[in-house]
Parts: sequence; C-alpha cells; structure tokens
Amino acid sequence: MRIDIISVLPELMESPFKASILKRAAEKGIVEVHFHQLRNYGLGKHRQIDDEPYGGSAGMVMMIEPLDLCISDLKSQRDYDEIIYLTPDGETLNQKIANTLSLKNNLIFLCGHYKGIDQRLRDLHITKEISIGDYVLTGGELAACVLADTIIRLVPGVLNDEQSALTDSFQDNLLSPPIYTRPSEYKGLKVPEILLSGNSRKIEDWLHEQAMKITEEKRPDILR
Amino acid sequence: MRIDIISVLPELMESPFKASILKRAAEKGIVEVHFHQLRNYGLGKHRQIDDEPYGGSAGMVMMIEPLDLCISDLKSQRDYDEIIYLTPDGETLNQKIANTLSLKNNLIFLCGHYKGIDQRLRDLHITKEISIGDYVLTGGELAACVLADTIIRLVPGVLNDEQSALTDSFQDNLLSPPIYTRPSEYKGLKVPEILLSGNSRKIEDWLHEQAMKITEEKRPDILR
Repeated sequence: MRIDIISVLPELMESPFKASILKRAAEKGIVEVHFHQLRNYGLGKHRQIDDEPYGGSAGMVMMIEPLDLCISDLKSQRDYDEIIYLTPDGETLNQKIANTLSLKNNLIFLCGHYKGIDQRLRDLHITKEISIGDYVLTGGELAACVLADTIIRLVPGVLNDEQSALTDSFQDNLLSPPIYTRPSEYKGLKVPEILLSGNSRKIEDWLHEQAMKITEEKRPDILR
Repeated sequence: MRIDIISVLPELMESPFKASILKRAAEKGIVEVHFHQLRNYGLGKHRQIDDEPYGGSAGMVMMIEPLDLCISDLKSQRDYDEIIYLTPDGETLNQKIANTLSLKNNLIFLCGHYKGIDQRLRDLHITKEISIGDYVLTGGELAACVLADTIIRLVPGVLNDEQSALTDSFQDNLLSPPIYTRPSEYKGLKVPEILLSGNSRKIEDWLHEQAMKITEEKRPDILR
C-alpha cells in the first residue's frame, strides 16, 4: 500500500509515522507513506496557496490551482484508488470504511486547513470525503494520521497478533467487555471470580454477556 | 490550562504539539502540556506496565498499579477537573464536549494501549471516558492529540481570528457552505455568480441556504 499525504504542515505528522505500528509497517515494506508540502506547488515567488473567500466570510481558503497541480502530478505517476479529502463535512469514519480502505493499493489524503479548500477542487479531483468525527480540528493533519492508523493496522502482516485486531471494539459491532490483569486483588479491588475460575466456556459466555450489556448501556445505537 | 498526558509512547505525540496552534498556545503561555512516560512508574527492574488478561483473551492489558502510582502522583500535586481515559468504548467526542472541556483548568488524558487498561483503574480514578469515533486506533495517543487540538483551539487567545472558530462546522449545528477563492474561473470551472455580486445580504442568505441544504443532504442526523 502507498499513501500520499498532501499538506501545508507535513512536519506536524512526523512523529506519529515514526512510532509504533506505522513505523513497523514502513520498516517491513508493507506500507509506504509520502508527504507532499503543498507550498512547493504554490503560486508566484511567495508560493501562495491560500486566499480570501469570495463573499466576505472570515478565514482563508486553499486555492484550487496549487492543489490541482499537486494532485495532477501524482496522478500522472500512478493510478489512485481513492483521493480522500479530510474534512468535517465528509462521511463519518467508521470501522467498515477503514476495513474497505485497508484493501486498496494507492491512496491520496488531502489535509484541509484554514476554512477548507475551494469547492471546485472537490468537484474536480476528490473521490471520497471523510470526517473523523463531529468536531473541528485546526487542520486535516491529525485526521490524516488517524485515518492512516486505522487503515494500516488492518493491512495483513502489520499487527503481530492478528487475532488481536479481530477482537477489538466495533469489529463485531460490540464494545469490548471489561478486562483485568494481575494482581487479582489491589487495594481491596478484586477481579470478578468467574475470570479466575479456569472454566473457559463459562468465561467466554460471561465476556459476551458483558460486551452486550456494556454496548446496550453506552451505545445502544450500534446494536440497531 | 494544563494538560497532563500519560502514555507508553509519548514520543508519538511530539510533532503535533510542536506545530501550528498547539505550539502557539504553548508559546503564549496559555496552555501547558506535560507528557508522562508510564514506564517510569513500571514495576520491578523491567519496569513492567502490562500483563496478560484474566480469562485468556488475546492481547495485553495495562496493569492497575503503575497507572495508579502515576495518577496518584499527579493528583497529589494539584486538583484535576477531569481525568479522561481515551478509549473506543467512551462517550463519542463532539463539539459540545470540546466546548465544555475548553473551560477547564487542569486535565489528565490517559492514553490506552494494547487491549486497554485494567477495569479497576477505570472504577478508581477515571472521571470521563472519551472516544474520538467508531474505529480502532493502535493506541490512545492520536486520540489524545485530537482531543487536545479540539479543546486548545477554543481557549480564548489561541486563535488569532476568533470569529473564525465561530463559523466552523458544528458550532451552529450546520455543516459549512461551499467556499471559493480566486481565480473566479479556473479551467472553465466558475465561482457561483452570487458570490461575486457584492450584495452582502443576498450572499449571507445564500450561504445559510447552502449550509442548510448540505447538512440536510449529508448529515440530516445533526439537524434533528
């Protein structure tokens, strides 16, 4: 898998891709991530990439031309499965979208900034618009890191313990049951008896029951 | 505002806090962010912080004792308004939660990792559990960065153009209208006439109409 990330602040994304699973995926050669500084495609000697919005609203807008130049340059080099714009008014990211994207080969992530990008660029190039949630971020850079993390960890060979991803929250439409580890008692707080019983069938039933109960309590919407 | 972030991978969060608005907020002295490496509170000479789950599920669990030591240490130094655990089964982050948290003074963010933390630690110390969305991340570190970004940009004095935050998506329960900037025509793609008309009242009406229309199309759920 190859991910090209276009941004005015690629340096913001450095450390997440140098740590943990994203680093391991790169070292194993399973995933390549390339950052593209949009300013390299900026206009004139000031490398302009944003301008005031028509209609007099507050904030700045990312111009169509530098973005078109950058994306056209990438598209001339290879075919992309999706060109994704990270934006608060996109489709809300969920595990199903992450699963689908983890099967793709070439992806572009475009990080919005300021008030967003010129609408015409969306019409021209963007094939998918994704929001990581109903809140506003300073820019799309953290959203791109989040999207990359959710996808890359699902690519076969990235996680050491593949079983582990299958039992995560959301993969079976249930939240996880409560978990406990040693010691069995800490400051008077005890691990539920059943988990110490050694009866693996009863334990499995109990864990499923707990997952159902917790999901019903906290997130009845995902059971529907 | 002071945010203490507890993590096994604080280095993952370095670059987001060194760029953009989070950096500016720190430089202006408006927000202090402190990272705490959980391993410094680990047990024994190997600084153990995780162990296998009771009941035989896959994955590792963050132990109660190192977390209790770390949080107790912080609590002995100051009062915290909230001790927040970032977890996929928490309350889903939205702009309202971000607005509320932006008014607090002292916050702890605890980044989950592996399969999560011992349930007893949640019962003992955690006052709020937040999920940034219905998807699984490798760890809570990116979630902590996202939460910090949504909160910190709302603290007065952090954004240069405060008007700008007020017109963001979600602040008025509407998605943003389409935006455009120069040139008015690019490769045959034109900016809507109305935005070039100079009639600010008509433009305002049009922008509101568009925001309503887009929200109805893409996210009827947030209009309810």
